[in-house]
Amino acid sequence: MTIRYGVIGTGALGGFYGGMLARAGKDVHFLFNSDYKHVKKHGLRIDSISGNFHLSQVNAYALSDQMPLCDVLLVCLKTTNNHLLPTLLRPILHANSVVVLIQNGLGLEADLSQQMPYTAIAGGLAFICASKTGPGHITHHDYGKLNIGLHCGNAETILRQVCNDFNEANIPAHFVDDLNQARWQKLVWNIPFNGLTVVMNSATDQLIQQKHSRQLILEMMGEVIHAAHHCGAHIAPHFDQKMIELTENMAPYAPSMKLDYDNQRPMEIHYIYTRPLEIAHKAGFEMKRVVMLEAQLQFLEEKNRNR
Amino acid sequence: MTIRYGVIGTGALGGFYGGMLARAGKDVHFLFNSDYKHVKKHGLRIDSISGNFHLSQVNAYALSDQMPLCDVLLVCLKTTNNHLLPTLLRPILHANSVVVLIQNGLGLEADLSQQMPYTAIAGGLAFICASKTGPGHITHHDYGKLNIGLHCGNAETILRQVCNDFNEANIPAHFVDDLNQARWQKLVWNIPFNGLTVVMNSATDQLIQQKHSRQLILEMMGEVIHAAHHCGAHIAPHFDQKMIELTENMAPYAPSMKLDYDNQRPMEIHYIYTRPLEIAHKAGFEMKRVVMLEAQLQFLEEKNRNR
Repeated sequence: MTIRYGVIGTGALGGFYGGMLARAGKDVHFLFNSDYKHVKKHGLRIDSISGNFHLSQVNAYALSDQMPLCDVLLVCLKTTNNHLLPTLLRPILHANSVVVLIQNGLGLEADLSQQMPYTAIAGGLAFICASKTGPGHITHHDYGKLNIGLHCGNAETILRQVCNDFNEANIPAHFVDDLNQARWQKLVWNIPFNGLTVVMNSATDQLIQQKHSRQLILEMMGEVIHAAHHCGAHIAPHFDQKMIELTENMAPYAPSMKLDYDNQRPMEIHYIYTRPLEIAHKAGFEMKRVVMLEAQLQFLEEKNRNR
Repeated sequence: MTIRYGVIGTGALGGFYGGMLARAGKDVHFLFNSDYKHVKKHGLRIDSISGNFHLSQVNAYALSDQMPLCDVLLVCLKTTNNHLLPTLLRPILHANSVVVLIQNGLGLEADLSQQMPYTAIAGGLAFICASKTGPGHITHHDYGKLNIGLHCGNAETILRQVCNDFNEANIPAHFVDDLNQARWQKLVWNIPFNGLTVVMNSATDQLIQQKHSRQLILEMMGEVIHAAHHCGAHIAPHFDQKMIELTENMAPYAPSMKLDYDNQRPMEIHYIYTRPLEIAHKAGFEMKRVVMLEAQLQFLEEKNRNR
């Protein structure tokens, strides 16, 4: 079976992952927002550390109800737009379609499943540095691995084939058995670094070099790991130390939340902070430092909106 | 007995309190730093909500060893300079002198007492909005009350006379029986507002209007009140609510730490955060949100120093 892919939200992630699949000859249909006309005329340009390329013929759409029915929907929107998903997805789903939320945070799949209870839903975790550097122009700076796990529905077989397609497209992709564990594990990095780079107005390198902020990051990672265990997700011992070392070896980095804040775009506070706090709270654990960081981010978000 | 006063550190506080005493005919000697020559030539100018005045003849000194022995030393330095105190004070103390630390924070008197074990030491809590608006020029914006309490030594009688002198000089001053309680009570406001105005880059009004930051402030006040109780200082019920209402009725305000940070002067983190945290920790209570705020301030302080 040949999988027909729909990419919902063609920014840095959607453009890169969808573009790589399309270059490898897969059947990919892209939903664009502001870049639609540009891409229709000029195609999609991807500058990647593993080689630059240009797609002159792109199956580009401005509205999802003009798209064909797709087997796999790769959702690459910012989670601040997730309220749009049922409307965007309904016209392109058939009975066996699976929706893959390639987004950060926790609780995304559960929330969508409440709105679309008969749809197979999966999650994707992207380990990648990429950014949109112009209309229809994506720059892939580093990494690229994709982990995919099932949330609900009978879709493991097709998701394994999706991973194969990505591998054929030169993207390391793995099917993970425990999506909950994978999402919590990613939060161990995302929770301290996304928020603190915003609140402290700093890149990752400064935060891990200064002893007080490094200590705070370690304590916050500890809270996330504790919460994960309460929520049935096992995180390996010393995973926090491993994340610190990984960050030390990265170039100074501004996470997506920092870029969103600096460019006065809404921050993904809800799914990276508020929902994980709610879910941990229900499981009986309070991430106290994370509560405080969330409050600080909510304050800055509101200030940013009123600027 | 006529008390001879020495004012150590003639900034906003020292200039205002010492200036009011001098205008009322008290015997006041002022130690200046950068403003010495200006004041020697032009005197001290005080613009106060309760009336402007100018002192043309000021007992001004550039070095403390040129000052006469004083009975009461009003220390109005920033606490970031407290390491200078033994050297500054020794030349002007006699056997019955008392040192009054009119400064913010906790543990100041204990630390000085370790260095100068035979000296009577007291603390002063200033409830005032005042700032230095130019060389030898103090502007008094609002309030002014002074609470004085004894830390160690046999000096209650003279401190009560000091309060009388202040009252005669039109400054409401009270002798308080429990300096520890008075210092903790003041921290209930100082700990959330000093730090959060810096970290959130906001004035007090924005912080109490936005629901997440208001909640955070209340939680942090709760931590300080808990810590106070562990340290034997009773804070009245609803004192946190009272502080919020008081702040709501104040004009939008930038606390001293915010002004210090914005002007790249060292922040008084040690005595407003680090020592209270240590003292509460010894008494068996961790102020977790305050720990995090302290770490954030230490990070910003180091960043400010390296700019």
